[in-house]
Amino acid sequence: MKPPLSDIVVLDLTHVLAGPYASMTLRDLGARVIKVERPGTGDDTRAFPPFKKGESAYFAAINHGKESIALDLRGEEDRLVFDQLLARAHVVLENFRPGVMERLGYGWEALHTRFPKLVYGAVSGFGHTGPDRLRPAYDMVVQARGGVMSITGERDRDPVRVGASIGDIAAGMFLCQGVLAALYAVQMGADGQKVDIAMLDSQLALLEHAIAITSVTGEPPRPSGARHPSITPFETFHAADGLFVIAAGNDALFATLCQALRLPLAQDPRFATNLARCENARLLKRLIEAVTLDNPAQHWIDLLQRVGVPTGAIQNIAEVMQDPQILARNMVVDVCDAECETQFKAAGNPVKLSTLPDSPVRAPAPKLDGNRADILRWLSEGSAENRDASE
Amino acid sequence: MKPPLSDIVVLDLTHVLAGPYASMTLRDLGARVIKVERPGTGDDTRAFPPFKKGESAYFAAINHGKESIALDLRGEEDRLVFDQLLARAHVVLENFRPGVMERLGYGWEALHTRFPKLVYGAVSGFGHTGPDRLRPAYDMVVQARGGVMSITGERDRDPVRVGASIGDIAAGMFLCQGVLAALYAVQMGADGQKVDIAMLDSQLALLEHAIAITSVTGEPPRPSGARHPSITPFETFHAADGLFVIAAGNDALFATLCQALRLPLAQDPRFATNLARCENARLLKRLIEAVTLDNPAQHWIDLLQRVGVPTGAIQNIAEVMQDPQILARNMVVDVCDAECETQFKAAGNPVKLSTLPDSPVRAPAPKLDGNRADILRWLSEGSAENRDASE
Repeated sequence: MKPPLSDIVVLDLTHVLAGPYASMTLRDLGARVIKVERPGTGDDTRAFPPFKKGESAYFAAINHGKESIALDLRGEEDRLVFDQLLARAHVVLENFRPGVMERLGYGWEALHTRFPKLVYGAVSGFGHTGPDRLRPAYDMVVQARGGVMSITGERDRDPVRVGASIGDIAAGMFLCQGVLAALYAVQMGADGQKVDIAMLDSQLALLEHAIAITSVTGEPPRPSGARHPSITPFETFHAADGLFVIAAGNDALFATLCQALRLPLAQDPRFATNLARCENARLLKRLIEAVTLDNPAQHWIDLLQRVGVPTGAIQNIAEVMQDPQILARNMVVDVCDAECETQFKAAGNPVKLSTLPDSPVRAPAPKLDGNRADILRWLSEGSAENRDASE
Repeated sequence: MKPPLSDIVVLDLTHVLAGPYASMTLRDLGARVIKVERPGTGDDTRAFPPFKKGESAYFAAINHGKESIALDLRGEEDRLVFDQLLARAHVVLENFRPGVMERLGYGWEALHTRFPKLVYGAVSGFGHTGPDRLRPAYDMVVQARGGVMSITGERDRDPVRVGASIGDIAAGMFLCQGVLAALYAVQMGADGQKVDIAMLDSQLALLEHAIAITSVTGEPPRPSGARHPSITPFETFHAADGLFVIAAGNDALFATLCQALRLPLAQDPRFATNLARCENARLLKRLIEAVTLDNPAQHWIDLLQRVGVPTGAIQNIAEVMQDPQILARNMVVDVCDAECETQFKAAGNPVKLSTLPDSPVRAPAPKLDGNRADILRWLSEGSAENRDASE
């Protein structure tokens, strides 16, 4: 069986992270992704460290398997090529500031008139509407403004950034969802749609719990360090050799935990309910650590896993990349160089479909303009494979 | 125009967060979502604080606009109802531990044989394959094991949890993507597929930068507090009245920043390139704060926004919920109660499509079993609207 999107051509004008992350997922689902890059330097992330043999691991992680053509969208000759690409594309993606595509003559309205079935996906810092639509944004700005930083960090200390770039990545994921929904609608007979994703909006969508609390109490939650704000015990604990996690999400699991640690606390009114445990969380943490400090973390993880209490290590990224479960799920893949030699490790595709091939080896990231000849040849081959023929 | 998924019926057996988050997005895209809940207590989150008039704001935030029917899938009578629902559904979602659906007689293989076009979406802690597939997991366990905690927190201090439940939410987002891709494939003529999403896998997919660094250097990155690990200045700074963010992502922005702060550092070899700035990040932070401590954060935000340097406040959730840009984008919506009175605030839908209605008021979350009569009536109405008729 073919991958779901194997007939789809994505024309990808995006750069850095949010947009390329969306087109990476579309590529993983089988689409052909043609990166249209700025001549000369191309996608900024080509210059992002770390490098190996002059190639950016960061760029490769997000762009493996895509094709590249360098086009100056203000130049007449390159515009002709871009017009031919548009005629064959099902999706165009861009992450310019609002208005840039319009000034180039490729805004949503113009493209929708010329290519009614084309899906137009835009991702920007603040979206294409609202008072701040023209302002620049980076991941850090939307993590701060969107509220996730205000609930991340140690209690009574300054907030910290989420270590992963979720300001970009969440937006890329929602862009992918919007494009998939719009492609489905086209297949059902509708016209193409504009998908307008804001990085700031996307942060809001991660905050279900914090917004619920603020909505009812009026009190915004604060950072709670390594513990869940409203479930106890659901945090990190010190063992003899370091930290590990216990997540006993209900009374039954707490009783099992107490038995395993030989702590007779399950009937104690200070700890008998989750509400009581939350009120006495610091005391409970000290009582649990009084026991757990006696043995290394792995001892407690093994013991608690045997009795079914959710638990686990806090792994650094090197450990994550060796984790047997993660490797069994093909979540660390090899990205090839042009000679098909392994060059980098990258995260695999988390969307596991029963008929989607999930190779442990991924095609290389493209050189800048590296697929120009093939793309021009494809464009000259007439309309046999193009979008209009499939309608 | 109709919403993209307006012909789709989702049978949703999931509870708590990851699965219900996915079906919330499908609902936002127009699908009819029927929650099949355990009789008696239903979805655990119905009992999660905070409450208003006895209803959980948390449950409402994730389940508004869905319908509910309580079914005991081990009872003969309820199984007959469930079978009728399956015959009309396009998608079934579940988040049991692997094997539970098989023991109920509703495993993927059995359902695929009976309903070849049905899309089957599963989300679990570790996925349906691999050595740890049967282990329980919660958000906290996969945040710790998946590596994101190891890069979140203050430098040289213990790691912290991401304040939002991204262990669940990222998995829910990937489940939604997989279901959308599988629905598209069905529309293109393929059979239904199984979508197998693991919370742990989904954490890996957020770590593009950290995995790239570890892949090349062998050194796993550590927490870097409120600064980006490889761009400077890209972090929080103290003003007279608190913290704010400056994200000067390249040399030109740094030069603009220096001019705005009247700090003659742009040509200084210690700060002239991003690499040099990263090496001297602590000194640079002190130099910038020597200036910014003189005025309140809003002064600097206004000044830097005027010259185009990405900047912003660190907003708490109450501030986020009043932010004019966020309100202009309809990202804080009202969730009604059964009498259509506003009951809760919740995050809006970040997937803005040009033809998708985006009402500022959302339908109520269902009472447990609250739609039984309507659902049974619909089932008795014959096959006019059902899935088979639309094929």
